[in-house]
Amino acid sequence: MALPIKGNIYFTGFMATGKSRIGSLTAAALGWKYFDIDQAIERENGRTVSEIFAEEGEAYFRNLELESLRKISRESQVAVSLGGGTLTNPEALEIVKSTGVLVALWASPEVILARVNRKKNKRPLLANLDETEKKAKIVSLLEERKPIYEQADFRFESTEQFPHHVLTRRLIHTLQVAQLRPLTVALGERSYPIYIEESLGGYVDTILEKTGCHGSPLLITDQNLREKQKPLLDQIRSSLRGCKVFYFRPGEEEKNLKSLNRLFTYLLRYNYGRKTTLISFSGGVVGDMVGFAAATYMRGVDFVQIPTTLLSMVDSSVGGKTGINHPLGKNMIGAFYQPRAVIINLVALKTLPQQEFLAGLAEVVKYAVIRDEEFFTYLESHQEALLGRDTAVMQYVVRKCCAIKAEVVGQDEREAGERAILNYGHTFAHALELLAGYRLSHGLAVALGMRCAARLATSMGMLTPSDEERHNSLLTALNMPETFPFKLDATKAWEAMGRDKKADQGKRVFILPERIGSVCITSEVSKELAFAALDCIDKETRKPVPGAERL
Amino acid sequence: MALPIKGNIYFTGFMATGKSRIGSLTAAALGWKYFDIDQAIERENGRTVSEIFAEEGEAYFRNLELESLRKISRESQVAVSLGGGTLTNPEALEIVKSTGVLVALWASPEVILARVNRKKNKRPLLANLDETEKKAKIVSLLEERKPIYEQADFRFESTEQFPHHVLTRRLIHTLQVAQLRPLTVALGERSYPIYIEESLGGYVDTILEKTGCHGSPLLITDQNLREKQKPLLDQIRSSLRGCKVFYFRPGEEEKNLKSLNRLFTYLLRYNYGRKTTLISFSGGVVGDMVGFAAATYMRGVDFVQIPTTLLSMVDSSVGGKTGINHPLGKNMIGAFYQPRAVIINLVALKTLPQQEFLAGLAEVVKYAVIRDEEFFTYLESHQEALLGRDTAVMQYVVRKCCAIKAEVVGQDEREAGERAILNYGHTFAHALELLAGYRLSHGLAVALGMRCAARLATSMGMLTPSDEERHNSLLTALNMPETFPFKLDATKAWEAMGRDKKADQGKRVFILPERIGSVCITSEVSKELAFAALDCIDKETRKPVPGAERL
Repeated sequence: MALPIKGNIYFTGFMATGKSRIGSLTAAALGWKYFDIDQAIERENGRTVSEIFAEEGEAYFRNLELESLRKISRESQVAVSLGGGTLTNPEALEIVKSTGVLVALWASPEVILARVNRKKNKRPLLANLDETEKKAKIVSLLEERKPIYEQADFRFESTEQFPHHVLTRRLIHTLQVAQLRPLTVALGERSYPIYIEESLGGYVDTILEKTGCHGSPLLITDQNLREKQKPLLDQIRSSLRGCKVFYFRPGEEEKNLKSLNRLFTYLLRYNYGRKTTLISFSGGVVGDMVGFAAATYMRGVDFVQIPTTLLSMVDSSVGGKTGINHPLGKNMIGAFYQPRAVIINLVALKTLPQQEFLAGLAEVVKYAVIRDEEFFTYLESHQEALLGRDTAVMQYVVRKCCAIKAEVVGQDEREAGERAILNYGHTFAHALELLAGYRLSHGLAVALGMRCAARLATSMGMLTPSDEERHNSLLTALNMPETFPFKLDATKAWEAMGRDKKADQGKRVFILPERIGSVCITSEVSKELAFAALDCIDKETRKPVPGAERL
Repeated sequence: MALPIKGNIYFTGFMATGKSRIGSLTAAALGWKYFDIDQAIERENGRTVSEIFAEEGEAYFRNLELESLRKISRESQVAVSLGGGTLTNPEALEIVKSTGVLVALWASPEVILARVNRKKNKRPLLANLDETEKKAKIVSLLEERKPIYEQADFRFESTEQFPHHVLTRRLIHTLQVAQLRPLTVALGERSYPIYIEESLGGYVDTILEKTGCHGSPLLITDQNLREKQKPLLDQIRSSLRGCKVFYFRPGEEEKNLKSLNRLFTYLLRYNYGRKTTLISFSGGVVGDMVGFAAATYMRGVDFVQIPTTLLSMVDSSVGGKTGINHPLGKNMIGAFYQPRAVIINLVALKTLPQQEFLAGLAEVVKYAVIRDEEFFTYLESHQEALLGRDTAVMQYVVRKCCAIKAEVVGQDEREAGERAILNYGHTFAHALELLAGYRLSHGLAVALGMRCAARLATSMGMLTPSDEERHNSLLTALNMPETFPFKLDATKAWEAMGRDKKADQGKRVFILPERIGSVCITSEVSKELAFAALDCIDKETRKPVPGAERL
């Protein structure tokens, strides 16, 4: 799945920086046409560039160049090698900038001189000079053209370290990734991009480089994903040139200090230093652990999230909450630690088990309820495509959810206030999870918790019964559960809410909808109304058609 | 050990906010004179304030007030209750501000009205008004005088919640702490003060409040300190009104995940929430663990350091490095997490075992070598007082070291560059600690490491032999070891250096002195010279008088 590149690609750079070679290889790799301005002029004029220079002077030649460039620029999907001095003409720069991207190849004066000397055909600008004069001329010309090269969209080193086809692949990936429009989570110096595409497995190295993660990468996943997401995992590994993989045992019960310490031991045994990038390829459980490991290994190393479940795409991979469980409470030990990048591959959703997909959809509905009625309407009208996991629809939905979360998190990184609205449905959900002995997935608990919260809001006169109906109908249409499949002990649930991490000195915090698209935060909820709200999902007490009049 | 208060204390505030009561209690508690301006005027004029108001008018009264104030202000150690309206006169404010601190007592209009009604003597400003009118008059007068009260140095609520003597003690502590001049570690929104005094045990509550730590405090120490620092510990506990204490088992070998988890379990079992302040009362081992627990409990709670060893006062309590050991390396798991405050009680040094004291002195010398020749000279000329742990000298020394560290950390919080100079002597020291199986204290290992680093610098022509001699002489004068008391295998030491956390991809990082007061960071050190440098502390190879000519 190659990413598109819009516009032509123009190569500039000093002589002997590989413009022709890399230009033609780029065209070949993309299936584009290739065009070398110098060669075209030589062909059309029946003389070499050196000859035209000698016989007609530079000004004449620059005019020929400009004409040639103007013609090519009208075509599309062309890779063009410009002459070493083409862009000294401002008109040429204007044409290039308006019809594609400009790549400046560069190399050190020493490398350039060595390459020039290796070639047979003479360079007109260096004709009749000895070695010392040549070097001095190169240095002075480089300095003179620096302002032009600095106008390029990309600077790319034409190093001797890699063969040309490798350089070309890296360059193409850089151009492709540069054309993506990731979301940004705006957190000052801790800001980071969220890429959301069908598949970016082959581009992980490029994204790491772009986001400044230059350390040794270690890919971390769980043993289930080794098989379940094999194609994507293989692509990522190959993009990272065979990077090692660490496997956690799967399951929430493994999200503990012991598992974390296994990872630390691995990192130390294999000499991963401070310049390490931990890449989580996983759902939320492993992602939370890897984030916490990154936050605390040698006091902090780089961290990248590649979420594989819908829930982790829209929720846990954004916002920097990392952590592990303690026998006395979930996520009790952790840190706020932002990833350097989040890379979402929608292709991973295709093979996601249905229950896990639904768990993620519950959070999707949550975002619509707390912040965006228009998005709620979109979900109502795309139920089928949602359940069919249509890629285009999922791309829109995931982006929307991440944007809402990014906005909320950007305003309140450490959950001092507003960020609490992301916990809509969660006060009930956490209690339900506890009552179920954690045999109920978090996402589905949230779906049930949202029903309770909506009921509570209705009973307090905040939400209209018809909005509650609309809220619940969407959940039902998206195959969310309607009843709690275990014994529902309201007293125990109420006590659990009081012990919740978000509870403030025993005060339970509820996020309640005022209408679809807006919620408020309150602690002023009576036990009686909370009990009644729980009734709406109690399989033993629940009447077939719930309505506000029951309260 | 009460802290001094400079200048007089002037109390302002609306009627019935307790100016006379709290003013006289304050004077009594401090052993000062007390003066009530209204009473003084009544005494001198033989009429009540109401009578003067009624018979002569307000302007006349304000003049009497000003004269009285001018007289009192010439005395020292006086607590003065101003009249409710004294400061409406700008001249009065000028006198107050130039001769002491101004405390504004305040209370709500309701509390004021209730108090006024309880009193027998009438308030002239409220004479002949009914209840509604009184309340309205209070509100409007409060509003009118607000700008005056806002000029006070302190606003203090005269609440009904505490008896007056408790309010008074809290007020005095607030004034005393406000007059201290803590160092500041400047890290933007993470800046924090370092208090360095003989004893602040009784003021911990006040410092917590001043630095915004409003959560439930938990004091954490180790079982040794329970006895060894009992008086100070008791004082702190009593200042925190019987706050609970958690005890770690003592020793570096307890600085691990397991101990940390014991603390987490305790916190969860006793329902410590997000608004918790963890207070470390300890040396570096417990301090590092508590800091890391604070960084990670519920994703971060408040943290205060009360260091009890010289080493932790000058080193580990400043700079935000927290963490625990892993069997494969020291401090491998941790976080950068700044305390809200550091409270240094020099009295704790008095009972510190000699070996621990010397370990701290080694770091003291380090600061002088890396940054401040003048300080080095100070240490040379105060050897006896240092070894005698003279409080005034220790206060200067600890403050100087903290200031140097604060400056370095302020420029490079996360050790990206310059902060590495704090590791002077540590490249060798970490290797020596490993070779000794950690039976050598960190501080003494640093002393030996500094000798090696100085020798290395001399052998590389960076340091003069006479500066090396001066460097080593001070260490010797301060009773630092001259030889490594275990087998010194240079090859193993060299390998250990390559595995150090600070090593960059196997490159050993050395901090080497260029002269006393200045160091540089380099990786360009040959194995041969490092081996030779180790020789200078090898008890088997070492000649009695080391000199540069040996190399």
